[in-house]
Amino acid sequence: MDNRFDKVIDEIRKNKNFLVSSHVNPEGDAVGSALAMGLGLKELGKSAKVFLHDNVPEVFKFLPGAEDVVHNIGNNEIFDITIVVDCGQMDRLGENFKKAKGHGKIINIDHHATNDAFGHINVITPDASAAGEMVYDLLNEMDVKITKDIAVNIYAAVMTDTGSFRYSGTTPHSLEVAAEMLRLGVNPWDISQRVYESYPAKRFKLLGMVLNTLELTQDNKIAMLVVTLDMLKKTDADKEIADGFVNYARSISGVEVGILFREAKPGEYKISFRSRGNVDVAEVGLIFGGGGHKNAAGCNVKGALEEVKNKILSATMEKIGKDSRIQGF
Amino acid sequence: MDNRFDKVIDEIRKNKNFLVSSHVNPEGDAVGSALAMGLGLKELGKSAKVFLHDNVPEVFKFLPGAEDVVHNIGNNEIFDITIVVDCGQMDRLGENFKKAKGHGKIINIDHHATNDAFGHINVITPDASAAGEMVYDLLNEMDVKITKDIAVNIYAAVMTDTGSFRYSGTTPHSLEVAAEMLRLGVNPWDISQRVYESYPAKRFKLLGMVLNTLELTQDNKIAMLVVTLDMLKKTDADKEIADGFVNYARSISGVEVGILFREAKPGEYKISFRSRGNVDVAEVGLIFGGGGHKNAAGCNVKGALEEVKNKILSATMEKIGKDSRIQGF
Repeated sequence: MDNRFDKVIDEIRKNKNFLVSSHVNPEGDAVGSALAMGLGLKELGKSAKVFLHDNVPEVFKFLPGAEDVVHNIGNNEIFDITIVVDCGQMDRLGENFKKAKGHGKIINIDHHATNDAFGHINVITPDASAAGEMVYDLLNEMDVKITKDIAVNIYAAVMTDTGSFRYSGTTPHSLEVAAEMLRLGVNPWDISQRVYESYPAKRFKLLGMVLNTLELTQDNKIAMLVVTLDMLKKTDADKEIADGFVNYARSISGVEVGILFREAKPGEYKISFRSRGNVDVAEVGLIFGGGGHKNAAGCNVKGALEEVKNKILSATMEKIGKDSRIQGF
Repeated sequence: MDNRFDKVIDEIRKNKNFLVSSHVNPEGDAVGSALAMGLGLKELGKSAKVFLHDNVPEVFKFLPGAEDVVHNIGNNEIFDITIVVDCGQMDRLGENFKKAKGHGKIINIDHHATNDAFGHINVITPDASAAGEMVYDLLNEMDVKITKDIAVNIYAAVMTDTGSFRYSGTTPHSLEVAAEMLRLGVNPWDISQRVYESYPAKRFKLLGMVLNTLELTQDNKIAMLVVTLDMLKKTDADKEIADGFVNYARSISGVEVGILFREAKPGEYKISFRSRGNVDVAEVGLIFGGGGHKNAAGCNVKGALEEVKNKILSATMEKIGKDSRIQGF
């Protein structure tokens, strides 16, 4: 018996007008779990509106229900209940959410352990790989008919938040939920093509330039890439795209730490680290006033490129010397 | 009841000495399913040797049992049974298999619809996403204890043959088998890191050069990349690595066909096509004496680069005009 949702189910049953929301800058899990929740409420005969402060990213616009997402809430709109999914803190719902008055009771459904339990009712399941997985569990518990439209949203949510079922947070249950969504008609190739193979061309133009800077050092344990302001200007690509390229540096055989140096402004670099296994790059970031997680961290350092590289390299090398116990990569 | 394996189980039960094999140039499913089969037989108290004509690729050497794979079979070695997995034709087992005499009865377990049923007993399940999935079903049916070592092999087999659960051949059962493997202790992040993030550095050096040739045309429906002999020489990278880059061309938003032109020798190009949805590039390949599948095809064309590009482009454009009904990419 899954009784996490007992209070939630009680509130859903006795109310009629629902608002569903998730965090600013929504990614696959935010969009997919919010849309699945909204469509599920409609299956129950409820009125449900999905609010997201920011636009649905281009790659997720195919998700069923995305066309009905609103970005403003009227002053006189009154809801019985607001269900918030995949959002750790109230203020991450955005300005336009804050301004509204008629939220009603707030139900907070999330899988982030750092969630501050801002709702009137809170269901926080850090073991869930995605909020979409929790929405599935809730709808399932209520015997809601999971339509193909709902299934596509849940599948997209779980697929994106597990990095195509690769991240360590992927559980047997994540895979079983995905299996059930396929049974309901989801085409995994169609969804992964839309999500993972719809890059802007300028991403690859920038990547070409950035890969030309690839440098391996310290016995090939460290791989470095550089992004200059000039490259971003020439390709008209977003800096967020560039920051993601650090994963290419880590994905080289034998490399324990991948580092990307992106020129943030003349004389200042934003540095991104990705490590494997035991090497804790958050501690390297911390030395330079940054931070992050064990295997993914960052910091900003002022100076000329060579100078910045030398500082970062020597701190990283020292850390690898302490932490590295990796075999077989 | 899964009774596909009844005859196989009967033979396994009454025999003692087994050889297990798979195809030349083995990939993840070949290696993983053969090793899982071998380890499973050992769990049953049988003697089992795994033979692969070619070396286990570097990225799969971590798979449990890989260190015991043999590449030769002695003239006087006699087996009761040879179990062949993931191999459509007998001659794809390689020269060293053919030369041996003591194979015994041949059991052929495969998921390729094109398998020519070369065994004394044949179990061919085209619906299975991977041979590894079938080996799991067989071991499960025999109540073999699936050790963590077996689970790692089965997970790697299914993960690689479904492209990390993305290809259209991925079924609910594929995902359920993967879920069960996680339950038995498989770490999905560890395995995907080892398999997907262990590229040689020269791959990225070559990719940088190749991406610099990116060209979009025909309303951005076609993306083209070029690999020259000079690039391969400068980076010392394998041509097979280069051929895989065609996927980057297809992965651009709006692109319906990605084309890679690789200089095979001076004045001759090997062309790879990847399409989305309805556009059948096998028919384009066929025009130039090549072929393939609907969404992945190739051919060789002689001539100077611009001349070859023009021929291929006009044939591709014509095909897109006929086939394209894609919305939303």
